Amino acid sequence: MKDKVLTLLVEHNFPKLRALLSEMNPADLSVLLTEIPASTLTVVFRLLPKDLACETFVEMDADSQQHLITAFSDPELKEVLDKLFVDDTVDIIEEMPANVVRKILKNSSPEKRVIINEILNYPENSAGSLMTVEYVSLHKEMTVSEAFEKIRRDGVNKETIYTCYVTDGKRILLGIVTAKNLMLAKPEDLISDLMETNIISCKTSDNGEEVAHIIEKYGLIALPVVDNENRLVGIITFDDAMDVIKEETDDEFMKMAAIQPLDQNYFKTSVFSHSKKRIVWLMVLMLSATFTGLIITGFENALTALLVSFIPMLMDTGGNSGSQSSAIIIRGLATGEIKLSDFGRVVYKEFRIALIVGVILAVVNAARLWLLNVVVYHNPDGLVREMLVVGITLIATVVTAKVFGCCLPMLAKKLKLDPALIASPIVTTLVDTTTVLIYFAVAVNVFGF
Amino acid sequence: MKDKVLTLLVEHNFPKLRALLSEMNPADLSVLLTEIPASTLTVVFRLLPKDLACETFVEMDADSQQHLITAFSDPELKEVLDKLFVDDTVDIIEEMPANVVRKILKNSSPEKRVIINEILNYPENSAGSLMTVEYVSLHKEMTVSEAFEKIRRDGVNKETIYTCYVTDGKRILLGIVTAKNLMLAKPEDLISDLMETNIISCKTSDNGEEVAHIIEKYGLIALPVVDNENRLVGIITFDDAMDVIKEETDDEFMKMAAIQPLDQNYFKTSVFSHSKKRIVWLMVLMLSATFTGLIITGFENALTALLVSFIPMLMDTGGNSGSQSSAIIIRGLATGEIKLSDFGRVVYKEFRIALIVGVILAVVNAARLWLLNVVVYHNPDGLVREMLVVGITLIATVVTAKVFGCCLPMLAKKLKLDPALIASPIVTTLVDTTTVLIYFAVAVNVFGF
Repeated sequence: MKDKVLTLLVEHNFPKLRALLSEMNPADLSVLLTEIPASTLTVVFRLLPKDLACETFVEMDADSQQHLITAFSDPELKEVLDKLFVDDTVDIIEEMPANVVRKILKNSSPEKRVIINEILNYPENSAGSLMTVEYVSLHKEMTVSEAFEKIRRDGVNKETIYTCYVTDGKRILLGIVTAKNLMLAKPEDLISDLMETNIISCKTSDNGEEVAHIIEKYGLIALPVVDNENRLVGIITFDDAMDVIKEETDDEFMKMAAIQPLDQNYFKTSVFSHSKKRIVWLMVLMLSATFTGLIITGFENALTALLVSFIPMLMDTGGNSGSQSSAIIIRGLATGEIKLSDFGRVVYKEFRIALIVGVILAVVNAARLWLLNVVVYHNPDGLVREMLVVGITLIATVVTAKVFGCCLPMLAKKLKLDPALIASPIVTTLVDTTTVLIYFAVAVNVFGF
Repeated sequence: MKDKVLTLLVEHNFPKLRALLSEMNPADLSVLLTEIPASTLTVVFRLLPKDLACETFVEMDADSQQHLITAFSDPELKEVLDKLFVDDTVDIIEEMPANVVRKILKNSSPEKRVIINEILNYPENSAGSLMTVEYVSLHKEMTVSEAFEKIRRDGVNKETIYTCYVTDGKRILLGIVTAKNLMLAKPEDLISDLMETNIISCKTSDNGEEVAHIIEKYGLIALPVVDNENRLVGIITFDDAMDVIKEETDDEFMKMAAIQPLDQNYFKTSVFSHSKKRIVWLMVLMLSATFTGLIITGFENALTALLVSFIPMLMDTGGNSGSQSSAIIIRGLATGEIKLSDFGRVVYKEFRIALIVGVILAVVNAARLWLLNVVVYHNPDGLVREMLVVGITLIATVVTAKVFGCCLPMLAKKLKLDPALIASPIVTTLVDTTTVLIYFAVAVNVFGF
């Protein structure tokens, strides 16, 4: 596809190119446009049919958008902006440098500018900052056919017409009517009889991610956003909710792996900013490993090859057991499946799981040692002592690891910190330290190594 | 809420209870119903208004559904089943034991039974198994008003009427018309003039998760599913897509943390099955740590407290660097942001990131050693040698870890294996082994420890 476009560009075969591009959909086009040389971007973009051009513009990444906006003549930009939904315009503005923002605002209609500024004032990631104000509002005295007329009149540039909002003179949200209700009703039916009055809505100040999960949970096409007086101020549509959830998940993944979330996609992020995003936690964890080092030097006299050879295995098992628990809890907290009030239940459950897992591992490890020492090396001396030291440490480690692993994320959440970001690295450090400590304590004090 | 319901139950105040429940929405009701004693479930369920009852039934977990189905009289079950969409019925059937399945099929209409069996024949997680057959189909010769009539006639029990599908006599998919197009068009307009002919669709055999991501990417309300002759066989709606994506993400999280995905939610899963899901990888990783152990005993003579004390720090840094890369690649592969064809680019990028990160870590660690030995212990002997051994190992470790971390997921994908499931554990093992190996090799061979 890309090559086709490039060849047509070289041949200056614009009619053919235009036809080709017009067949594509915005999502794919936006990707294609980032792949062609920036110099040709504006030329290609100008070939697109107006509507397609705008839909594509919305989907493009900030760099290309900025490139285009700067290249656009004011009338050109005006034309694009007039076609954009307010929420998309705001998303774009949030990514742009001041001079570009000025150019955008200068070319938006005065009314739109007012709304944009309103939305920009909502805290980042709040429902208010996600919403759009292009919704269909009806009055409860209307008949279905009157409603249809109104939709026909101003439906064209509404983000969705499938859920219509019934408001009174003061913009108070009274109910919702779906397009399905309308299409299945008789023309003379009254909106007040059709409307659903027990409404799921959110406040402008609500957390955007939680709102997105509500939309997902109830499978809504759009969710109304109201202010503290229950006046309808906007709606959030399911596709925007899907985007929020996808971004949230991406971030969670990164955080779980001790990476600070990326602002752009993998390839657009430079090697240096990638390094920056990763070095922070690596450094913290490396320095925190000083403790483990100190503990080991503390047990200098016990450092036989035998004991030392188990350190990696014990640390890995501890680390993995811990991250198993923290991952499952962090995810549960994110999706709302696990609540802070479940603390007791969770800890008790993880404790029992840890016991079972720990004992099994200890037994399997004993078997492994027997194989290695008796069958392979024919040297059973001190085998039982070995089995016991390592076995006891394994059980103790798995239990502490899993208890830390489930407590810390919930503690972080309780302290309004980000469980994924805070918990997982701390779990690693704690688990490593305790593992080594338990190990040598048991070996030296209990079994006199 | 729950307590309210229970008290009303005890007081046998059913009218009040009915009124209370009728105000709730299916998603919340389904949760509530799992929380009340199973014995009361059927009673409460029977209080619900028919439609609400069915919508709630769909949202409930398998256990409660099975409980109800067994409690239902045949006519009762029939009534519920008649109101269900085929795709929901199929989802339920897939969770039920044979005898319950028989009861369900016995009470579904013959036509429905045929469709159910068809859908059950599609491979699990295929688009075919996700789709529903309740869609609105139109003919291209129809006028808008005729289309409206048809929708009014059979729209009631369609899963969505917002995207209508234009098919010919042979059910070949010709185009799609959105309810928006219809509502904004003139009654006499022809469907053939309104319909969008360049359609995004999927095949029954396509992978369900990929299809869900298409729906997410394009923000579609529904995606048409066609067979190999391009005949329309069903549609997949955005809410089902959202569910698929959520489940996929849950699984990915678990796999990344070396847990086998759970079949039910955290609390419904018993301690034993939790243990089973976690023990597998812990065991594999524990046993694989045998190598690290062997390597260490191999360097018996080099095991000074000094050298040993760095092992945990080096292993942690290696493990974390590796999981950073594997996590970011696994996620990228899952969302389609990274493709197998990007292999070279990815490896090169990760390599450069690793170099930068590794060098910085080495320097910071050198500083840490200087602080510890010179400032704290006033004992600078062999400090430089220490710095070099640990520094070189750090850089080598981070580089190998990150290269393994990005190669293995892509390799797994290439071999049609699950990147998350296979890659992350193997990365851990490989990295641990190489870290220890590099460390002692450098220490002994280069710096004669």
